Amino acid sequence: MRGVRGRAATDILPAWAFETGWRHWPPGARDGIGAMSRGALARDLRRVAGAAEVFFAKVKQQGGFAFPGRDLASPRRAACRHDDKENPMSNEIEERLQTLGLTLPDAPVPAANYVPYVLTGNTLYVSGQISMMDGELIKGKVGADLDVDQGAAAAMACALSLLAQVKAACGGDLTRLKRVVKLVGFVNSLGNFTDQPKVINGASDLMVAVLGDKGRHARSAVSAAALPLGVAVEIEGIFEVE
Amino acid sequence: MRGVRGRAATDILPAWAFETGWRHWPPGARDGIGAMSRGALARDLRRVAGAAEVFFAKVKQQGGFAFPGRDLASPRRAACRHDDKENPMSNEIEERLQTLGLTLPDAPVPAANYVPYVLTGNTLYVSGQISMMDGELIKGKVGADLDVDQGAAAAMACALSLLAQVKAACGGDLTRLKRVVKLVGFVNSLGNFTDQPKVINGASDLMVAVLGDKGRHARSAVSAAALPLGVAVEIEGIFEVE
Amino acid sequence: MRGVRGRAATDILPAWAFETGWRHWPPGARDGIGAMSRGALARDLRRVAGAAEVFFAKVKQQGGFAFPGRDLASPRRAACRHDDKENPMSNEIEERLQTLGLTLPDAPVPAANYVPYVLTGNTLYVSGQISMMDGELIKGKVGADLDVDQGAAAAMACALSLLAQVKAACGGDLTRLKRVVKLVGFVNSLGNFTDQPKVINGASDLMVAVLGDKGRHARSAVSAAALPLGVAVEIEGIFEVE
Repeated sequence: MRGVRGRAATDILPAWAFETGWRHWPPGARDGIGAMSRGALARDLRRVAGAAEVFFAKVKQQGGFAFPGRDLASPRRAACRHDDKENPMSNEIEERLQTLGLTLPDAPVPAANYVPYVLTGNTLYVSGQISMMDGELIKGKVGADLDVDQGAAAAMACALSLLAQVKAACGGDLTRLKRVVKLVGFVNSLGNFTDQPKVINGASDLMVAVLGDKGRHARSAVSAAALPLGVAVEIEGIFEVE
Repeated sequence: MRGVRGRAATDILPAWAFETGWRHWPPGARDGIGAMSRGALARDLRRVAGAAEVFFAKVKQQGGFAFPGRDLASPRRAACRHDDKENPMSNEIEERLQTLGLTLPDAPVPAANYVPYVLTGNTLYVSGQISMMDGELIKGKVGADLDVDQGAAAAMACALSLLAQVKAACGGDLTRLKRVVKLVGFVNSLGNFTDQPKVINGASDLMVAVLGDKGRHARSAVSAAALPLGVAVEIEGIFEVE
Repeated sequence: MRGVRGRAATDILPAWAFETGWRHWPPGARDGIGAMSRGALARDLRRVAGAAEVFFAKVKQQGGFAFPGRDLASPRRAACRHDDKENPMSNEIEERLQTLGLTLPDAPVPAANYVPYVLTGNTLYVSGQISMMDGELIKGKVGADLDVDQGAAAAMACALSLLAQVKAACGGDLTRLKRVVKLVGFVNSLGNFTDQPKVINGASDLMVAVLGDKGRHARSAVSAAALPLGVAVEIEGIFEVE
């Protein structure tokens, strides 16, 4: 599993992964394309949750950002929200977000003459979202200042912001999202970096973990010479809504 | 106001801004999203015109390009076209262009096996337009060879070329343009540049100054390691037409 | 003709170019936009074939990749497939591919949570295709490790992969492709490279050589600071299908 090399699974995986019969999932397996099995979803959930935990550990070491809606002092506990009854789940997507311990950030509004999204027909274009968590920018060159796992966490943060914009565009109802159509991911790196796909996988994995098959998308992953405010990752998206 | 720091407003703003009751507009204010007030439009007109004047001043110092359709020797006078009766205004968009003292360049035709635009359904895809004014390329790395204001002026030039292509695609009738859907702006910069949004604002501001609310768009702004012919900015666009 | 400077045409052009009455074509001519004449198509066929031969020569020197479906020991002979009767031609597009001596590669399937293409309405979004031939990556910085012609060959390889994905999306029937709408080409280069358009022309030329007028597209060509796995070129595409 990406991002958890050299640590026992029990040190990394959230408790709920062991409470729901997913323990014997074969490491290293990858999803095919097509109908998503319950097992595949489980793998994605664990991969994302694992990556998030690694991210939290590193961020804690660095005294860094709080993940939106999570308690940094006890990330495993915060991740284990599937038995939390205080928020009634409005739909399957919100449920998955909650199971993953993820909360969508506020949909950022640009301070300029452009807008967060434009809907034309059923196609929703969302502006490039920069890597930010809980209002703090995730900055640096991936491969130099940040390692690939940290870059993937930055891409996850972009994906959460994209979903927050989609939710805002859908009047708060994510069930109107029919499909993630395309993502273009820009990684802030030096000229010798070659792991753009692993970085942007952080966003792709999150989309599929949260949305299932409708989260699968076309994608490009490239390096930018530099990104706004020095952020590590910027991702724009095209979505089909109804 | 971007680009006019340290100079009195009367030194920078075109005369018409003082003849039309916009003098007491509060500096630093930014538009929200939504219906565009007359005051907001005024601010945009002035911001763009101010940026253009700064651009002209710098270009004059450097003995550089002529702005399309304007008299470099007297930019303020050239900008003050709202009382110019010799060209009948065909519609509100053309009127705004004229008020701003802007003239669309010829729509450049690529010398290769691609085309300036493709219309599919109501969606118009316009090829990346490189920063060029009156046939001369605006070259250099923003943040090194050009400062941010000059970069914003380069982005304005790209936006003018995009509009010229849209006009050509609409058979010369810009009233068929329903909406600017998305811009992707590539800034030619070194790896430590972080003001991509301020640069691409030159294009976003111009779109809104010329088109009003239908000029508001989704956007991504990133740095490219290098751009064709060494230009400072390249911007591509998606537009909804009818 | 790009890529064949300093060599006699008879040294470069495939034999079929001289057997079909195209010998007296004026070098340096470029197509306009609009209906494609037989002469224009001939020029494109020759330009692409010439670029491919130069590519083969260089690749052979370097002990490199085999071009998909072609015999490296005798590229001219392999290119001369128009008299090859063993494969019945299913349609005009397949016929042109065969005339050019080109074979579409297998449509690569990403090993991750994204997919090679997504169809929404009649619009097909194809993921960024990296430069690869016969399963081997074409790597390096264009302008440093590779020259512009080699970069154009890398872009041709990306275009072949894009067409392979379109064919897969169309259930194997390329006649369902109505139009190439837009390509975005990312060139792996240093900061002083300025020939991005000549590189991406490799893809644009191939699209028009294979598809005729429906191959003409809107386009952006920029440099990326770095690309996945160190490849020289990555190109994504939008297509209209029926």
